[in-house]
Amino acid sequence: MSKIGYLGPKGTFSSEAVSLAFTAGEPVPYSTIPACIEAVSSGEVDYGVVPLENTLEGSVNLTIDYLIHEKTLPIVGEVIVPIQQHLLVHADFATDWRSTVTKVISHPHALAQCYQFLRNELPNAEMETMSSTAAAAQYIAEKKDPSLAAIAHHNAAKEFSLVLAKENIHDFANNHTRFLILHRQGKSIKMDTERFKTTFHIALPQDKPGSLHQVLSAFSWRQLNLSKIESRPMKTGLGRYFFIIDIDHPLDEVLLPGAQAELEALGCQVRILGSYPSFEAIATKTTSGI
Amino acid sequence: MSKIGYLGPKGTFSSEAVSLAFTAGEPVPYSTIPACIEAVSSGEVDYGVVPLENTLEGSVNLTIDYLIHEKTLPIVGEVIVPIQQHLLVHADFATDWRSTVTKVISHPHALAQCYQFLRNELPNAEMETMSSTAAAAQYIAEKKDPSLAAIAHHNAAKEFSLVLAKENIHDFANNHTRFLILHRQGKSIKMDTERFKTTFHIALPQDKPGSLHQVLSAFSWRQLNLSKIESRPMKTGLGRYFFIIDIDHPLDEVLLPGAQAELEALGCQVRILGSYPSFEAIATKTTSGI
Repeated sequence: MSKIGYLGPKGTFSSEAVSLAFTAGEPVPYSTIPACIEAVSSGEVDYGVVPLENTLEGSVNLTIDYLIHEKTLPIVGEVIVPIQQHLLVHADFATDWRSTVTKVISHPHALAQCYQFLRNELPNAEMETMSSTAAAAQYIAEKKDPSLAAIAHHNAAKEFSLVLAKENIHDFANNHTRFLILHRQGKSIKMDTERFKTTFHIALPQDKPGSLHQVLSAFSWRQLNLSKIESRPMKTGLGRYFFIIDIDHPLDEVLLPGAQAELEALGCQVRILGSYPSFEAIATKTTSGI
Repeated sequence: MSKIGYLGPKGTFSSEAVSLAFTAGEPVPYSTIPACIEAVSSGEVDYGVVPLENTLEGSVNLTIDYLIHEKTLPIVGEVIVPIQQHLLVHADFATDWRSTVTKVISHPHALAQCYQFLRNELPNAEMETMSSTAAAAQYIAEKKDPSLAAIAHHNAAKEFSLVLAKENIHDFANNHTRFLILHRQGKSIKMDTERFKTTFHIALPQDKPGSLHQVLSAFSWRQLNLSKIESRPMKTGLGRYFFIIDIDHPLDEVLLPGAQAELEALGCQVRILGSYPSFEAIATKTTSGI
């Protein structure tokens, strides 16, 4: 059975991504993104699931920086998980939360993501931060106090037997967290999706106006669509930036290698970080306890 | 005297950004990015300093999403602060930390940023997470326990009278956090810099291959250099993505308005989020207590 490293603890978005991507396998939690990537690299686990974007649990840039500068591990899959935040209370005080809750506890980003809800529905409640949404859920489960609520994922409600007092309290719909799946030898995985992406790391030879425009020509005239582009500061040499570009196309034998060859001829450093299936989960309709 | 809202608590990178950008003024801490932006919008404070990238304290995407979708506040300045993390211990146990420390406490991102250091120098130490680096520093200051160390900014060492047992323990040099300064009426500020940037928000009329390439032509042929580009998913209508593009040029009367007019003629939605001075702080050489 495969071992799957992920950013713990249990009841977080990362563990949700693992269960969406793998039907079998033993999940192994790690406390940091680098620890998880290192575990894949050393063979301690077979796959690693690490957040790439917009996550509560890890620094976005750290994943890509670590993959670029420390450990080159092929990306073999992607899971996109909708961000859904819920107000959790102890089951004994589920009905009167509007009048009893005076303190809301969560990860600082989760509190920020639900700012409008808190301002409108619990304007007088104090906010307290904890290191994870799961830790906040565990805390209010242990305290059994009608004045306390947590903001967390519905898995945390299950994990700590809490009730969803109010579902989907995040301010922005259509917000997602993106996770990458890594494997040391780039062993491909099967996912229930028809969407494939290829991710390029491109460093320009110099920072002159129009360089990026020129780089994009190689994709544009081949009618290859970009689904994401991001510039990141270089750590060394070769201009001041590199680019991470996702192309909505699996690695073929003509188009993408052709684009790569052209870019290299222009003096760019080009690396394909992976070509992989992309699975996007649908927001789950939870069954409220109330 | 101006009031300057920022993401608290004291002793964090955000408060460092405030002191770098403003020589006078009363700093007012807020617990979330939206709360800080709302305070600028309502006039509760004059300026707001919010993290945009690569920060420990706030979600990157939240700032830009909030500015795009909730409150349109002009960007009037930018401060770039180098990320420097230090190992802090209580002054009574400063010399023997290698043999006494068995637990390192910090914000999860800070622990991740110092992963290689911890693995090499304190391989057997346990890691414990807290909601901020400042909270971790405060905790070990109160506990006075030789087995405890915190990872935090040097301001936190000052704030809680701790000693820098080991300086600059972050794995990647050249990592920065970028902060934006907002003002309700777009009142410009003076900064000690010659670098000016203009930030565009551009939504494409449709997601056809080559659209971004076409958009960049408007900047490229005017020899306007991009210092940053990032795609973000749209919340509604008009294609699936929008782009945030920073141009290394102040807003003038010819080049940038010309590019904007061309992009609009192509069917893009274009908004200038601000044109502002950009100040980059130099990594400080701290004076170690040991």
